Amino acid sequence: MKRLTSSQSARALLVFASFAFAAQILAQTDSLPSWNEGTAKNRIVGFVEATTTQGSPHFVLPAERIATFDQDGTLWVEHPMYTQVLYCLDRVPALVKAKPELANVEPFKTALTGDLEAIAKLSMAELEKVLVATLTGMSVDAFSAEVNRWLAQAKDRRWKRPYTDLTYQPMQEVLEYLRANGYRTYIVTGGGQDFVRVYSARVYGVPPEQVVGTAGATTFGYDKHGRPLLTKEPKLLLNDNDAGKPEGIHLMIGQRPHAAFGNSTGDQQMLEYTAAGDGARLMMLLLHDDAAREYAYGPAMGLPDTKVGTFSQPLYDEAQKNGWTVISMKNDWKRIFPFEQ
Amino acid sequence: MKRLTSSQSARALLVFASFAFAAQILAQTDSLPSWNEGTAKNRIVGFVEATTTQGSPHFVLPAERIATFDQDGTLWVEHPMYTQVLYCLDRVPALVKAKPELANVEPFKTALTGDLEAIAKLSMAELEKVLVATLTGMSVDAFSAEVNRWLAQAKDRRWKRPYTDLTYQPMQEVLEYLRANGYRTYIVTGGGQDFVRVYSARVYGVPPEQVVGTAGATTFGYDKHGRPLLTKEPKLLLNDNDAGKPEGIHLMIGQRPHAAFGNSTGDQQMLEYTAAGDGARLMMLLLHDDAAREYAYGPAMGLPDTKVGTFSQPLYDEAQKNGWTVISMKNDWKRIFPFEQ
Repeated sequence: MKRLTSSQSARALLVFASFAFAAQILAQTDSLPSWNEGTAKNRIVGFVEATTTQGSPHFVLPAERIATFDQDGTLWVEHPMYTQVLYCLDRVPALVKAKPELANVEPFKTALTGDLEAIAKLSMAELEKVLVATLTGMSVDAFSAEVNRWLAQAKDRRWKRPYTDLTYQPMQEVLEYLRANGYRTYIVTGGGQDFVRVYSARVYGVPPEQVVGTAGATTFGYDKHGRPLLTKEPKLLLNDNDAGKPEGIHLMIGQRPHAAFGNSTGDQQMLEYTAAGDGARLMMLLLHDDAAREYAYGPAMGLPDTKVGTFSQPLYDEAQKNGWTVISMKNDWKRIFPFEQ
Repeated sequence: MKRLTSSQSARALLVFASFAFAAQILAQTDSLPSWNEGTAKNRIVGFVEATTTQGSPHFVLPAERIATFDQDGTLWVEHPMYTQVLYCLDRVPALVKAKPELANVEPFKTALTGDLEAIAKLSMAELEKVLVATLTGMSVDAFSAEVNRWLAQAKDRRWKRPYTDLTYQPMQEVLEYLRANGYRTYIVTGGGQDFVRVYSARVYGVPPEQVVGTAGATTFGYDKHGRPLLTKEPKLLLNDNDAGKPEGIHLMIGQRPHAAFGNSTGDQQMLEYTAAGDGARLMMLLLHDDAAREYAYGPAMGLPDTKVGTFSQPLYDEAQKNGWTVISMKNDWKRIFPFEQ
């Protein structure tokens, strides 16, 4: 090929320079447009810049850029009840149709009524019976298909929208911003790993293998045609709540996160584990203090206590003492949901 | 910016065309130079081209490009004994120093002799006692540090080299070739997940989170300074052998692989599970038939049987019947190790 003259080279350089300039403009645009200016937003941006700028004393190698996010109450709405529990309750009529003897047996009798207030009064042991009966005993493929069917038609009572619409736009921006800066974003949820994996890629851009959750055993076997299949068993392998979160992170990721986001006492140990690493670490807790736009709950700051997602006073105190950042939904977020303009 | 004249645009196009041409040349270079021409190599290249060419009937979305590899005997040498077992045996003197009463108790008494023939005669239950005593009870960070120290000084008796040198160059090329084509390469090993994760990134280019292995529970707690730590417990969560391999793949990855590589009956169910998916799938088994350059073992094809890595006759028959590819180390590989020229 003919060599370029020096004037042609200069022009070529100009073309490249203009691309570089455009890239710089893009980089300066706001990656977190749904966040109000303030401490929370500054901490996120400051952390990302400190850990991804070559030569920074807090630079983190790309291989070690791991960020973990609780799901319920951190990435999407968890009231009036965890979405997965609503799924399980909606499966009860079909369950009773297949086993009519359950219709008059608790907890199925109450679950059948669909009365969330009555259902909320079931004990944890009773609720677990509903979960086990509706989440196990089928192949993993049949389960995924069932969850997909349900997600396509079920709607939240307040917003009259599919549950997968009820993710928090500001957190979607954090996920995307971290990924754009070389972080692998993991969901670390007390919810069922198999449940969340069904929709994590399309809802959060998080592939199934980056979802860590409460997980049961499966058993490998063959169907009547000799075709291999995995069956979901009522045997718990990982209770991914509280101390189970760092244990699950070690089991499934094998690296300590540099950033962790949660909203309740179930996330405390994940944040402690994250904070205990060297160098820059980002620990954030979302406080639900916005009854008008979403919900207000948890005893911290005098909000009413509820059964799910408790942001306790001791957790709030620990956050203050350790310099973790408490995100105020009311003050830090311009916008709550992607469907709002 | 000044617009380019049409002649300048033509020249700019030429510059881009020359880059494209260079890229094409690169693509045509042999990605598997240590493989002899033949069925095995053709199957690998054919699979990659069929699943990554846009418009191909077997095209696989990048999000679903998962390939799994057994480690011992598939990616590196497993004779005369699994490397991790050698690590455990080497830890026994320190263990006995800390607990002198073990010196005269089996299996520690035999393990202390270092006599591999005598050690090979220990029962599985006895061997497990050595594994539990040397792989649990410490923090995960202390364990990683100990494995790193050992890997830096321990040497294989035949090649007089660190164990991490004894990976198979042709398989390293397959890992790299798959990754260059958008596949995430996972190690799915019967060996300890925590053990393999210590060196997987530097030895295979596989990050810790892409290692699935036999895994024990950990317990989250605090050290005497109140600093969080995870302690390795003698409680098995996943026995990642046989049926445990597809079960482990579901637990840790949540997607069925499109390609799977193994070398023994312990990999049978992983290959069956892989094969049972739709579209193009690649199932390969490495046959150790090269006593001169490595080892020859397993009853398939009349080779002597041994305790580790058994490539049984039924597995060989199943591979033939199902069209899985058997790789002959002797005939398909030009070169065995990276250190050979």
